[in-house]
Amino acid sequence: MPAIITLLTDFGTRDSYVAEVKAVLASQAHPAHLIDITHDVLPGDVRAAQYLLARVWPRFPQGSVHLVVVDPGVGTKRRALAAAAAGHFFVAPDNGVLSPLPPDARFVELPVPAGAAPTFHGRDVFAPAAAQLVNGTALTHLGHAITDPVRAPLPAARKEGGSWVGEVIYVDRFGTLVTNVPGDGLTGAPVKVGGKDAGPVRRTFGEVEPGKVVTFIGSGGTIEIAVRGDSAEIKLGVGVGAEVRV
Amino acid sequence: MPAIITLLTDFGTRDSYVAEVKAVLASQAHPAHLIDITHDVLPGDVRAAQYLLARVWPRFPQGSVHLVVVDPGVGTKRRALAAAAAGHFFVAPDNGVLSPLPPDARFVELPVPAGAAPTFHGRDVFAPAAAQLVNGTALTHLGHAITDPVRAPLPAARKEGGSWVGEVIYVDRFGTLVTNVPGDGLTGAPVKVGGKDAGPVRRTFGEVEPGKVVTFIGSGGTIEIAVRGDSAEIKLGVGVGAEVRV
Amino acid sequence: MPAIITLLTDFGTRDSYVAEVKAVLASQAHPAHLIDITHDVLPGDVRAAQYLLARVWPRFPQGSVHLVVVDPGVGTKRRALAAAAAGHFFVAPDNGVLSPLPPDARFVELPVPAGAAPTFHGRDVFAPAAAQLVNGTALTHLGHAITDPVRAPLPAARKEGGSWVGEVIYVDRFGTLVTNVPGDGLTGAPVKVGGKDAGPVRRTFGEVEPGKVVTFIGSGGTIEIAVRGDSAEIKLGVGVGAEVRV
Repeated sequence: MPAIITLLTDFGTRDSYVAEVKAVLASQAHPAHLIDITHDVLPGDVRAAQYLLARVWPRFPQGSVHLVVVDPGVGTKRRALAAAAAGHFFVAPDNGVLSPLPPDARFVELPVPAGAAPTFHGRDVFAPAAAQLVNGTALTHLGHAITDPVRAPLPAARKEGGSWVGEVIYVDRFGTLVTNVPGDGLTGAPVKVGGKDAGPVRRTFGEVEPGKVVTFIGSGGTIEIAVRGDSAEIKLGVGVGAEVRV
Repeated sequence: MPAIITLLTDFGTRDSYVAEVKAVLASQAHPAHLIDITHDVLPGDVRAAQYLLARVWPRFPQGSVHLVVVDPGVGTKRRALAAAAAGHFFVAPDNGVLSPLPPDARFVELPVPAGAAPTFHGRDVFAPAAAQLVNGTALTHLGHAITDPVRAPLPAARKEGGSWVGEVIYVDRFGTLVTNVPGDGLTGAPVKVGGKDAGPVRRTFGEVEPGKVVTFIGSGGTIEIAVRGDSAEIKLGVGVGAEVRV
Repeated sequence: MPAIITLLTDFGTRDSYVAEVKAVLASQAHPAHLIDITHDVLPGDVRAAQYLLARVWPRFPQGSVHLVVVDPGVGTKRRALAAAAAGHFFVAPDNGVLSPLPPDARFVELPVPAGAAPTFHGRDVFAPAAAQLVNGTALTHLGHAITDPVRAPLPAARKEGGSWVGEVIYVDRFGTLVTNVPGDGLTGAPVKVGGKDAGPVRRTFGEVEPGKVVTFIGSGGTIEIAVRGDSAEIKLGVGVGAEVRV
């Protein structure tokens, strides 16, 4: 069964950059399925990339290689990493984007080849390393082990008395506000986001009329606030970082 | 030869949703080629999805599985369907999006597993069913047969005297107005759209100067109205639903 | 090892057009990996397509088939081409988009089948030809050889005294100005673009503060002008065609 390489970048899809990365993979890796996570992360938005990576990587089969290049520090002295965890492999810049990996993840620092373009490590550093991992090269053969990767996890919600206090950590394309408050057992609890009333936690957005605010336990397991058929971000004027109380 | 799974959704491409669906397919289906139809249907636009599905599914090889998730009713009581027709398979919500299937299509209602996220049946209901179909599970093993799927076909053009009266059923990214008037034998006939003169039916848009309105028989076999090198939707101020007379 | 077919078009990704092309490839070609270069070339922008093709095709493995359909002349008398060069294959309209091919490239003119839609040669002419090339059909069996394809290469930079004079040939999604001035040996040289000072050629954009103009040798080997964390196109008010002096 062919391996899987996933790609998560902020390259966009209108230039040649994604295809140049895929050309390296197609040339250097054994046959593999290339699956785009997204290339539309806002340029340099490491936190959004981290959120997206956390949602998807565990759902892929073991043996998958995840190439993550949201890399505002490309060309600076930030390190280039490869990692292994739970039977999966990762290549990414050392900027915290791999924070969702479990504590027992192993990391190596990738050397930067002499001819690598200082502005395109995705093509010249990360793609060749991903290809080697697909081909079965051991992680430890790709670089020297390190134990201090940047760990900058997304903020966690906390309990204050009987309430959860968290924040909006992502806004999706529908304008839905994704929070970091775990949804378990919260059905019916009243919610405030950015100081505004978001109603009780419901089962799904079908329970309110179109145009109304609805709070529910999202498909990632945390509380989400939406406006049915519209954008909660715009209608409520609330975005990433806004406080959430449940 | 590996199977093909096509994906047609309104999830957009900047979030994790498409990748979560593909992760389920990659984990549960035998090796298959995943081919995106589009993920940029306007949120909840079942009619556009229906139009796009009708154009593409018959062109894929038999044995293909088509996953269609434009699902404004997710989390309500609308049924989840799998279907078979002409050697192809389909999974989709029961909201009319499968209306382009032929009359002898067979349908089953998919059960919703206990743990399925009420807002993400694409990942938790439809993708697992698509995987099973790829793996050769019989349609009738996926759920109980039903005979009353929602059928809400796109409007058809009608003859009035010697004229066709139809409407614009889709506007593409170039701003071209796609109508439901079959083009056969109409070369040279005068056309009006939304009450505006759109000239005679020509062979192709190369027959008019840039910036001019041109009507021709489109690649889907029906009359289309374009502005060469520009948007007919904007230039004529005409959109989906506008009356067309030929 | 399965073949690779790359796709480079201006079809966009929200309609059925790309999927209709892929359906033909899936139906007529032996199993192949379909890799999108991009479908977001501005409608009819043959020069941008030429630039993107030049960057990517040589990085793919030999035997790859590159389908390029940016075709403002579809439906006119422009010829349809297939080509072979350096172990790669190409199908494209004869409008100069294949100008990046080496001088010893071989070309044939593809016949247009009777039933082909005059507005969709991508599906009805180029995709079937690409499938045949994947299946091993010899180039010369696809059409009659021609020796006069349209060659309209992108402008080249020239030396004037000790300086390079070139121009901006592409602007990427980050608003970075890509020029045609080869970067070799120019580190430290002062640069002007559109009459504006763009500083000395640096190694990478990490060498300036966010918000500042930075000139460097890009990943394509030529001089590029960016604004760190912002758009040089917008900040400098400079676009394709602007003069560059180094």
